[in-house]
Amino acid sequence: MQPSAERNLEQIRRWLDSGDIPGLDGYLNALHPADIAEVIGRLEPGEQQQILSLLERHEEAEVLEYADEAVRGEIVSDLDDKRVSEIAEEMPPEEAADLLIELPEERAEHVLELMAAPEAEEVEDLLRYPPESAGGLMAPALARVRDDQSVGALLDQIRSSDELQEADIYYIYVVDASDRVQGIVPLWDLLRATRGLPVRELMQEVQAIPADMDQEEVAALFGKYDLAAAPVVDKDGRLLGRITHDEIQDVLREETNEDISKFAGTDDDELASLSSINTARLRLPWLLICLAGTFVSASVLHSFGGTLQAYLILVFFVPAVTATAGNSGLQTATMTVRGLATGYVERVGAWPLVLKQVKATVLVAIACGLVGGVVAAVWSDFSSQHVAPGSAAMLGGIIGGSMFAAICVSATLGVLVPMAFRKVGIDPAVASGPLITTSSDIFSLLVYLGVASALLTQLGT
Amino acid sequence: MQPSAERNLEQIRRWLDSGDIPGLDGYLNALHPADIAEVIGRLEPGEQQQILSLLERHEEAEVLEYADEAVRGEIVSDLDDKRVSEIAEEMPPEEAADLLIELPEERAEHVLELMAAPEAEEVEDLLRYPPESAGGLMAPALARVRDDQSVGALLDQIRSSDELQEADIYYIYVVDASDRVQGIVPLWDLLRATRGLPVRELMQEVQAIPADMDQEEVAALFGKYDLAAAPVVDKDGRLLGRITHDEIQDVLREETNEDISKFAGTDDDELASLSSINTARLRLPWLLICLAGTFVSASVLHSFGGTLQAYLILVFFVPAVTATAGNSGLQTATMTVRGLATGYVERVGAWPLVLKQVKATVLVAIACGLVGGVVAAVWSDFSSQHVAPGSAAMLGGIIGGSMFAAICVSATLGVLVPMAFRKVGIDPAVASGPLITTSSDIFSLLVYLGVASALLTQLGT
Repeated sequence: MQPSAERNLEQIRRWLDSGDIPGLDGYLNALHPADIAEVIGRLEPGEQQQILSLLERHEEAEVLEYADEAVRGEIVSDLDDKRVSEIAEEMPPEEAADLLIELPEERAEHVLELMAAPEAEEVEDLLRYPPESAGGLMAPALARVRDDQSVGALLDQIRSSDELQEADIYYIYVVDASDRVQGIVPLWDLLRATRGLPVRELMQEVQAIPADMDQEEVAALFGKYDLAAAPVVDKDGRLLGRITHDEIQDVLREETNEDISKFAGTDDDELASLSSINTARLRLPWLLICLAGTFVSASVLHSFGGTLQAYLILVFFVPAVTATAGNSGLQTATMTVRGLATGYVERVGAWPLVLKQVKATVLVAIACGLVGGVVAAVWSDFSSQHVAPGSAAMLGGIIGGSMFAAICVSATLGVLVPMAFRKVGIDPAVASGPLITTSSDIFSLLVYLGVASALLTQLGT
Repeated sequence: MQPSAERNLEQIRRWLDSGDIPGLDGYLNALHPADIAEVIGRLEPGEQQQILSLLERHEEAEVLEYADEAVRGEIVSDLDDKRVSEIAEEMPPEEAADLLIELPEERAEHVLELMAAPEAEEVEDLLRYPPESAGGLMAPALARVRDDQSVGALLDQIRSSDELQEADIYYIYVVDASDRVQGIVPLWDLLRATRGLPVRELMQEVQAIPADMDQEEVAALFGKYDLAAAPVVDKDGRLLGRITHDEIQDVLREETNEDISKFAGTDDDELASLSSINTARLRLPWLLICLAGTFVSASVLHSFGGTLQAYLILVFFVPAVTATAGNSGLQTATMTVRGLATGYVERVGAWPLVLKQVKATVLVAIACGLVGGVVAAVWSDFSSQHVAPGSAAMLGGIIGGSMFAAICVSATLGVLVPMAFRKVGIDPAVASGPLITTSSDIFSLLVYLGVASALLTQLGT
């Protein structure tokens, strides 16, 4: 898609520079709102306003619906509240709610006041739910039918109502007299049914989603049952709204950013804002925690100061030990966290996973220990200065052996810490990334220097 | 969902132990196939077979459709080819293709031979496309209509055909006389249309997807236009099949695992198999590359051996420098990679992103440098042995200053390397994780020790 985006951007720039407004207008009309949304962030604020001013309100609304959160935020900040309220009125209520939730509270309230009553009410209803809950994802359920109706009556209802004109609808939601969800009727089955048939006969079971369910859980449900849409219900099972597949795709993309950001010890909010102070604020806590951890490593090194001064080569291989241990710890931690996040551990069981990790770790630890040991031996053999007394082979064996031990220890941490976090109800993803590498630094240094100095003293060198 | 899964597992185990087969049968019949698929991996192979044997072929097929890849692989390996072919016949062709693609080639071919001709042909058609391409994702497009037909004729066609009974269909695909895709008719609009209307009048534009498009690009298209389904076409625009939202959700989950695995220097194939040798094989290359990198770090340390022996405190703070530099490098790299992967960089532009990263880095570098410096000063002040001559404040300043420099350098690496990789056409995600931390180790040590020893000698201590 990038090429098409670049082409559109070029064209729009050319039209803007040429000042040929009717030409620009014509070009924009030929584009899908999503295509305009894709490139508008690359233009100067002034140009952005110029482009929006050429669109009709409903087109403007669509472009903002498709636009990136950060881009939309910047554009809306340049519009007055009246204009924003007019745009919000043109949006489906769930999109308008997403727009308002990004505004400062008092501004959002003012925009709501400016909006026409019915639209404003629908939006306010949706704003009651936390944005990361099923209620925050849902749109009003447009097509609902009483379970005692006939297919014919339903069809007439659908054909007569104008508000349903623009909607993209996959299921009809069947409710009882007190609005409790009974099931769904896929449009496909409705098309094939005869008018006389009672709706109840066409009805299929459906997974109703409580409004307070977390969006990750909702996405998991959609994945488990391959749903295109699902009804959202209150505590008594009454129909509140519907969630569609496109919301779920957004959730999955969001979660990807969230999870990956956690691995790096930051937060995906970074992606939604261009403020560097905000970014620093999100990163610093992790960095300081890790920094504190490194002071523990420092005192470990300090406590072995004598050995280090006598065998400086041990210092040279500190990065080799901490890095390989850290990386294999990160690998086991990552795969354990993913196993937990994807429900893989639930479906396959924890033990097969742990067993696999342990065996794999021993294999890589042997390989790395060997390489490290050989290199260390050669090193101490060839380089005289600052290295050490004692035979090269012995030093190589010691360094290789302690590397092996260090890798095993931090790989074990990588499996156990996320599992433990899960048990006590902390998000396992927190256990990966910086936290695992820092703790692995400490433990691998302890093991490495502990084993090394023990062997050295024992060998009486 | 986990609680419900646990409950189902318990119940099934209880029925199995009780040996009350009719009871078990009854319990299974009350479950959705996805619920059985969710827990079957936790049972012993014998128990798995017992449960499948209680299901009818089409139920058995559904359970395997919903089951985890690794679980399905193990179950199928215990079934004979005849049984597998019967199951494959019960599956929709795209699911059967996914099943066969996981089998050893000669086994897959044998199963195909055993399948009934029409089903086998449909599956073979789909198997022609690479699994990660649009063709690999697609299902046969069931509901197609000529653009010169009337709504009435289309409705009659839909009602008469039996093969369309079970299908979940959202759009009718409109084609011309030579089967080239002209557009779609959403079922919803079809429901509201009058029989006399020509289908052409109901038709909406649609994003047709070339069969050879990569699945990531397909997912991006679905996200950009919020599609529920899209037609897949050959080079001449002829309708080959359709891709639906649920396939896209699977792709997004897959990509998440792939990306996150890359950050940890391994591969998400780990999650699809229980082989530890395979796992080790996937991880070792990265570990060895990093290990090689650490030997460079070792020679850096070696070359400063004299300074280190004189100022052993510099050694104690090596982890502080490498870890904080590595982490902030990882943070900038991760966010840059995500920015590129999500198209955020395209939509907002590269410069605002780089600028934000630079400013944020300077801020965190100052903070970490200060903390590190103060601690180093206090450290050298209180701890006499193995530390250093010279004033504590001076040492603190030197260590803090060189930490600041080291962080800035590796954070810059974190931004530039992924962007450079993208430019030359390497997946930027490769640049994150182990690669960035290893190179950051080398550079941060160079900067740290370079600055420190320069200052120390200059200060003539």
